[in-house]
Amino acid sequence: MARVLIVGGGFGGLAAAKALGNAPGFNVTLLDRRNHHLFQPLLYQVATAGLSPADIAAPIRSILSDFKNIEVLEGEVTAVHLDQREVVADFANFTYDYLILACGSLHSYFGHDEWEEHAPGLKSIEGATEIRRRILSSFEEAERTEDLQKRRYLLTFVVVGGGPTGVELAGAIGEMSRFTLSRDFKRIDPKLARVILVESGERILSSFPAKLASRAARDLESLGVQVWRHCEVTCVDARGVQIGNERIEAATVLWAAGVRAASLNQTLGVTLDRNGRVIVGADLSLEGHPEVFAIGDQCRFEQTGKPLPGVAQVAMQQGRFAARTIRDELAGRPRKKFHYVDKGQLATIGRSRAIAEVGKLQLGGFVAWMIWLFVHIYFLTGFKNRLLVVFQWGLSYLTYGRGARLIVGRDWRITGSHHPDELSKPGS
Amino acid sequence: MARVLIVGGGFGGLAAAKALGNAPGFNVTLLDRRNHHLFQPLLYQVATAGLSPADIAAPIRSILSDFKNIEVLEGEVTAVHLDQREVVADFANFTYDYLILACGSLHSYFGHDEWEEHAPGLKSIEGATEIRRRILSSFEEAERTEDLQKRRYLLTFVVVGGGPTGVELAGAIGEMSRFTLSRDFKRIDPKLARVILVESGERILSSFPAKLASRAARDLESLGVQVWRHCEVTCVDARGVQIGNERIEAATVLWAAGVRAASLNQTLGVTLDRNGRVIVGADLSLEGHPEVFAIGDQCRFEQTGKPLPGVAQVAMQQGRFAARTIRDELAGRPRKKFHYVDKGQLATIGRSRAIAEVGKLQLGGFVAWMIWLFVHIYFLTGFKNRLLVVFQWGLSYLTYGRGARLIVGRDWRITGSHHPDELSKPGS
Repeated sequence: MARVLIVGGGFGGLAAAKALGNAPGFNVTLLDRRNHHLFQPLLYQVATAGLSPADIAAPIRSILSDFKNIEVLEGEVTAVHLDQREVVADFANFTYDYLILACGSLHSYFGHDEWEEHAPGLKSIEGATEIRRRILSSFEEAERTEDLQKRRYLLTFVVVGGGPTGVELAGAIGEMSRFTLSRDFKRIDPKLARVILVESGERILSSFPAKLASRAARDLESLGVQVWRHCEVTCVDARGVQIGNERIEAATVLWAAGVRAASLNQTLGVTLDRNGRVIVGADLSLEGHPEVFAIGDQCRFEQTGKPLPGVAQVAMQQGRFAARTIRDELAGRPRKKFHYVDKGQLATIGRSRAIAEVGKLQLGGFVAWMIWLFVHIYFLTGFKNRLLVVFQWGLSYLTYGRGARLIVGRDWRITGSHHPDELSKPGS
Repeated sequence: MARVLIVGGGFGGLAAAKALGNAPGFNVTLLDRRNHHLFQPLLYQVATAGLSPADIAAPIRSILSDFKNIEVLEGEVTAVHLDQREVVADFANFTYDYLILACGSLHSYFGHDEWEEHAPGLKSIEGATEIRRRILSSFEEAERTEDLQKRRYLLTFVVVGGGPTGVELAGAIGEMSRFTLSRDFKRIDPKLARVILVESGERILSSFPAKLASRAARDLESLGVQVWRHCEVTCVDARGVQIGNERIEAATVLWAAGVRAASLNQTLGVTLDRNGRVIVGADLSLEGHPEVFAIGDQCRFEQTGKPLPGVAQVAMQQGRFAARTIRDELAGRPRKKFHYVDKGQLATIGRSRAIAEVGKLQLGGFVAWMIWLFVHIYFLTGFKNRLLVVFQWGLSYLTYGRGARLIVGRDWRITGSHHPDELSKPGS
């Protein structure tokens, strides 16, 4: 029996596990520090109160429960000893015949980790509910203050980073303030909320064709989102952001800029690229270690001279490839070279617009949004989640409502602290 | 214009607000420290991964958005100065012509607040997700340990308090371990989990007729729940509970025993009962302050020699009564006396059994469960929530699944801490 260890239950790790599931001759162990797989492309919907965490997450062990040869363990991997073929987790050590590293990425604050506290990013359920808490709390606090300057500060939202995540987040905040919240507040007009999308480069959505990106920018502007280009954030603190000489006072700052690979890579003792990714060979394995694969956001793989982007499609194709390579090898077949098949890219703006690039086809507006909708529902993990999300979106679409407008604190204890989330309330 | 202040957006406060909504001559302000109304009778479903928080909660300002004369403000009331007719909140002070106090209750640890850390209770979304985290983490940790004694400790669940909340919680854990989880774990058999319901009195569900209560006890036992009667908990710590001379080693201890009224009562300077409740007159007003009403869990009102129980029906009827009294008074009509109309009581055990007492009718089993189902869906706040819950329950009923099996930590920061919930992991 070949012993395969998979670290990480994201898109890549799950795809690899499924491709090895019930295959004779394999014992598979999947380790993840969380008990759930997260459908990250919809995480911005949790952050903007459109969906609940459980709608886009499912226990990894449920997803894989049909495979008799896979066991799932919750735990954090802290180091890999390549030479001993050993993985160190916080509760035990594991040996392997094959190892698939699929730990994904974290946000990168470009060496300013202290900014994270003031500008949460979208990488986990906790991050998303924290963002939701900050957005909703700002509106609540604006409603109860009489000070106009403070109100302006509370109703200013800065999103740093003009990639798909930043665009989707900014669009959803614009839409929420214009439609969902406007009738619920009596003292303030949520429509006056100012949403600023800050991009350091020449334009937002740089991976898309320029024409589509400028269509997206116009769509954003119609939702009241200001798009600031060529703007590098030089400081983030509790009261706002600094952009060169300009200061934006904002109660809510959200981070959707750079990413870096999981820090586990630093224990490998191999060469990493600037973003901490493992540089892998043509078969996705590590140099000198054909039994170790790194996939998804954790690796750097170049195709036609450019590294592949950190998207779900890449991770899934790489996961399946790594699994097939292991199966081939045990069957005595030679290794192949990985080749990514680009199926296109999508980004949505507000409630019924998107942009889509599929092969040579470039689409915007409602049609692109229908494609976006179909693709996201189709790929969402779990039948129940799919039905639930369709159902909630249908209702939200008809009513402009957002069903998950909960401000939830961190501390569950009631005695002692009366305002559980005081510590992290923006601007207080 | 008469200025009415309502403190608290639970069942009582909302009922009062609705009864004053759009009534000419009134300006109503509702203050709550949370932005959402919580349907507490279903909170045990969140704690046991059957529902998501947003399914049973809705923003108070949305619920009341149709009423032009009501404003909703999120903030905590810290004191009431009855003589100055002034309410002190954390962000401003308010004066009133009429005040309705509807702050509800907290768990009482009988003078041992230090137990709360080891035995969370079901009073808030945060408490419920903390309980969910502890239950699910215990199964995950049991799966990854080889130590049989530790496994036994991890798979022991103690619920303290045999009222409806304790019974529903224990039944749901029993059901989850027997049905939902059993096929997802490879190393442990979740069916072997031990659920102990500890009751200090002679029997569980003391407010129900003895015959129904013993039926419920049998139903619990069929789900593997051990019911321990006449057992007083004398100590709760990080490793279990002490019951007289007996020690139960348990990773998960949950609290569903006594309650006490909100601590705001202590600022009133009036006589309180043993549980911190305000003793109110026949019209629910405070002695010497006919303009101040206390309702729901916050007050003690005796009918036929017994204080009314702390249930939603009492709070709602009292809220409507207080509102009507104020309207009557402004219309020159005399005050009436409050009389509670008991519509019956319900408790559910596991997935398809319940007990119901409606007038002289006493029911158990599936029929009682259907009544329970209908009543809870009917009273659930918000049309969307009702549909969603019906939908989720339908699916869960068919599949034995539980859709919200997420272990979510408290810390949203990714850098720095790698195991966000390490601090509070039971038994580690």
